[in-house]
Amino acid sequence: MEQNESTHTKCPIEKTMSVIGGKWTFLIIRELFYKTRRFGELERSLKGISPRTLSLRLKELEDESIIKREVFSEIPPHVEYSLTDKGQSLLPIFNAMKEWGNTWDVSGKD
Amino acid sequence: MEQNESTHTKCPIEKTMSVIGGKWTFLIIRELFYKTRRFGELERSLKGISPRTLSLRLKELEDESIIKREVFSEIPPHVEYSLTDKGQSLLPIFNAMKEWGNTWDVSGKD
Repeated sequence: MEQNESTHTKCPIEKTMSVIGGKWTFLIIRELFYKTRRFGELERSLKGISPRTLSLRLKELEDESIIKREVFSEIPPHVEYSLTDKGQSLLPIFNAMKEWGNTWDVSGKD
Repeated sequence: MEQNESTHTKCPIEKTMSVIGGKWTFLIIRELFYKTRRFGELERSLKGISPRTLSLRLKELEDESIIKREVFSEIPPHVEYSLTDKGQSLLPIFNAMKEWGNTWDVSGKD
């Protein structure tokens, strides 16, 4: 990292941020630390997200093996999303962010 | 956090992400963990950033008390940027991100 400071370098921090840094992405991951969720539950938790955006973000996270998608062939069928081991291993990052956010004031322009 | 899952809630994770989550922002912070930097040094390290964007991001980080800006009245005068205690306290987050990025493969669409 010290040697190669270009933004195109695959710095591990950049790699991680490319996975979790999106506006909705880290909120979806945060929801799934609590428990497995259905699509509609995620949609209700993440107020303001469009179903299309939620689908896209879930697909990206699935492609990145952060979450897994399970289809239950009941009547009616339903789909559940949960974190994989790779996704669960993001917990120390989220815990560190939680601790920092609880410690410091933020002006919060968003 | 469990009770209030709206994106408008001041969840500590959201607070933190609002400070470090920007594309260039976390890269600027990353540079400053190494050492104090001048504007031109940051510009060269962050290949592709425009001077205007770098100025804006530095100002935001200064407003948020993550970095401090010191003017040295030498000839020629110069300005140095460094992390405050609040900024330094982000280190556990960056270390956790670094460890995760070193552990897992990322498809890296960016």
